Amino acid sequence: MNSRLRSDAEQIVRAAIDAVRPDEAVRRALENVQLTGRITLVAVGKAAWRMANAALANLDRPIERGIVITKYGHVMGALPNVVCFEAGHPVSDANSYAATQAVLEMTANLSADDTVLFLLSGGGSALFELPLIDAEEYQEITKQLLASGADIVEMNTIRKRLSAVKGGRFALHCAPARIEGIVLSDVLGDPLDMIASGPASPDPTTAAQAAAIARKYSLPLSDAAWRCLQTETPKEIDNAHLQIIGSVRELCRAAEAECRALGYEPIYLTDRLCCEAKDAGSFLASILKSHENSEKLLAFITGGETVVHVTGRGLGGRNQELALAAAKGIAGMNAAVISVGSDGTDGPTDAAGGYVDGDTLAKLCAAGIDPDESLASNDAYHALQAVGGLIFTGPTGTNVNDVTVALLG
Amino acid sequence: MNSRLRSDAEQIVRAAIDAVRPDEAVRRALENVQLTGRITLVAVGKAAWRMANAALANLDRPIERGIVITKYGHVMGALPNVVCFEAGHPVSDANSYAATQAVLEMTANLSADDTVLFLLSGGGSALFELPLIDAEEYQEITKQLLASGADIVEMNTIRKRLSAVKGGRFALHCAPARIEGIVLSDVLGDPLDMIASGPASPDPTTAAQAAAIARKYSLPLSDAAWRCLQTETPKEIDNAHLQIIGSVRELCRAAEAECRALGYEPIYLTDRLCCEAKDAGSFLASILKSHENSEKLLAFITGGETVVHVTGRGLGGRNQELALAAAKGIAGMNAAVISVGSDGTDGPTDAAGGYVDGDTLAKLCAAGIDPDESLASNDAYHALQAVGGLIFTGPTGTNVNDVTVALLG
Repeated sequence: MNSRLRSDAEQIVRAAIDAVRPDEAVRRALENVQLTGRITLVAVGKAAWRMANAALANLDRPIERGIVITKYGHVMGALPNVVCFEAGHPVSDANSYAATQAVLEMTANLSADDTVLFLLSGGGSALFELPLIDAEEYQEITKQLLASGADIVEMNTIRKRLSAVKGGRFALHCAPARIEGIVLSDVLGDPLDMIASGPASPDPTTAAQAAAIARKYSLPLSDAAWRCLQTETPKEIDNAHLQIIGSVRELCRAAEAECRALGYEPIYLTDRLCCEAKDAGSFLASILKSHENSEKLLAFITGGETVVHVTGRGLGGRNQELALAAAKGIAGMNAAVISVGSDGTDGPTDAAGGYVDGDTLAKLCAAGIDPDESLASNDAYHALQAVGGLIFTGPTGTNVNDVTVALLG
Repeated sequence: MNSRLRSDAEQIVRAAIDAVRPDEAVRRALENVQLTGRITLVAVGKAAWRMANAALANLDRPIERGIVITKYGHVMGALPNVVCFEAGHPVSDANSYAATQAVLEMTANLSADDTVLFLLSGGGSALFELPLIDAEEYQEITKQLLASGADIVEMNTIRKRLSAVKGGRFALHCAPARIEGIVLSDVLGDPLDMIASGPASPDPTTAAQAAAIARKYSLPLSDAAWRCLQTETPKEIDNAHLQIIGSVRELCRAAEAECRALGYEPIYLTDRLCCEAKDAGSFLASILKSHENSEKLLAFITGGETVVHVTGRGLGGRNQELALAAAKGIAGMNAAVISVGSDGTDGPTDAAGGYVDGDTLAKLCAAGIDPDESLASNDAYHALQAVGGLIFTGPTGTNVNDVTVALLG
């Protein structure tokens, strides 16, 4: 019976990851964009080249021109009519500014009929940036904020106002042209104004808050910088249509759909899991055990990013720990738990995650392995390896957190 | 909005606990028992006197005679036609044996028309016991098993065979009379053969397993003891009808019913929660956050007994830690988490548990309390106390683990 569960579990996870691969996700998102007039392509972020490549392969009409800005080493080849820039990440450098300046020039003077196809992915905050003040003062302010313990919200409240593109200003710059944005999310909960500091999203922070933060940390600001802080960011944006793709929510939804296709009734619990990995595994095993007598095939789905407090010197990752921790609770049951990182790597290992089912505990015992000891020494990798419980996917080209599926057969 | 959540949460928990109070639960269970012929009452366990008292108050005909065996200090007064014994717990003593002997004499020679009303609660393993071998050898074997690291299943496999009443033998003794059993469960998952070692339940363990355990630990056994181990326990019992009352499952079901009555759609997750308390709180907060945009009022229900790994010197309990750990994840939401111990005490405190809602984090901040620091020092009590988040019920007279309800308003 558990061989069926194993193949179902692997298929569900494969389908979920496939759905959030940039190429496939961009292709699907393009079905919902409206491309009129001259088409300008702007792709920014760690996955920018890949997203641009996928867009060009799937558009039914040519773009007029385009710019890709991505990390050093991430341009994989030439793209027709597109200039590819590589720049600093996670800290902006002169190339970031030059590339962003080129984007602003390319998107100036567009008409209301024109379209900017804007492909955004993680890393955009550093890669897509042009300070409104002297670059050295800008870097000095950032350093001071970091040193004084400002949190990420405070940092962004200041930086959005010192930037020519962040906090909705890129959308303002492109007006009256329309922006069709496709956003590959790597931030839990998909706050659009946080991903790459929201170049095409309304900014919820205010100039008054920015001033309060500057006073709180006694930032020594030039007159130019003060003027920037006092200038309000866009609170409404009516020329941008954004689609989020490849978020952890999409990952969970795709898992849900595949569960249904395989005959399981999916029960979506959360896409924001952030507790200790092994306790999440125990919790899910408790849920499975309590539904043991269900007449339906059930699938409980969670997504997110659990944590591991390392106390031992073993090898493993959060998904492997989560799965291993469920083995005891479902021992003897017709049930399974699979957990994988969507990027195909889990911790410092070559595995993407782990799989356990009702037979796993017995196999571990036969191999002389106590799962509690393996967890205590953070050695889930070797425990799962001994019982064929490691899941390998290879690098997937995407990174939208983890997905976990608990199946009741 | 959160005042509505607070009163709903408290009402749900109150209704759940009321449903598993021995008095009320016995009264309801009596509606499903069939009392014929002469009625003999046998009540065993920590709640025996209370259960017997409730039964006598609710029976519409008198019992012929009865025996109560409970812990020292747990007999609250005389009961008509009932002899009350107090005996050793958690270790059997001579009073346990004498009282059990009295029960066996009272229930000998019953006819097929007669009924034994058997009221069982936690602690019955020690209180209801009569060894089939010399008492000293019996105690010696128990000690040796403990010292050699035998687990609870191994212990019980041996002890059931050395007992005149455990492992279904009490039911066998009462035949052909019928046993109407009402079992107040305090074991997660309600395994009937585990509660008080199952005096009226078929025994799944075998004589062959018992012999293997004796060999594994090189138990030095007398001939009499060996003969006992080789004697099979009942595998089928047809003269006993058992109802489980007041289990954690009943606690959860009652919470579910009250949620529905208040307009929430209940989603029952588990009655076997056993992970770290604060991670359970985080997991539930993640679930609430992911359902924030639900159009329905939702209630996620868990039961069980979480654990706390104490690292600090503060004051608290597992239910208070669970609740406090959810405060951050639901901050600003129209949501709440309540968690209480059904016995009315949580850890070494006077509170039964804790309550948090979308306003709690702000209140904690205003009081200068960082919930993460409170959890790190195991000081949930004082954190919740400062924001009115402690739940008090007073002693409830029952003990069937904890119930947690996560509400989305």
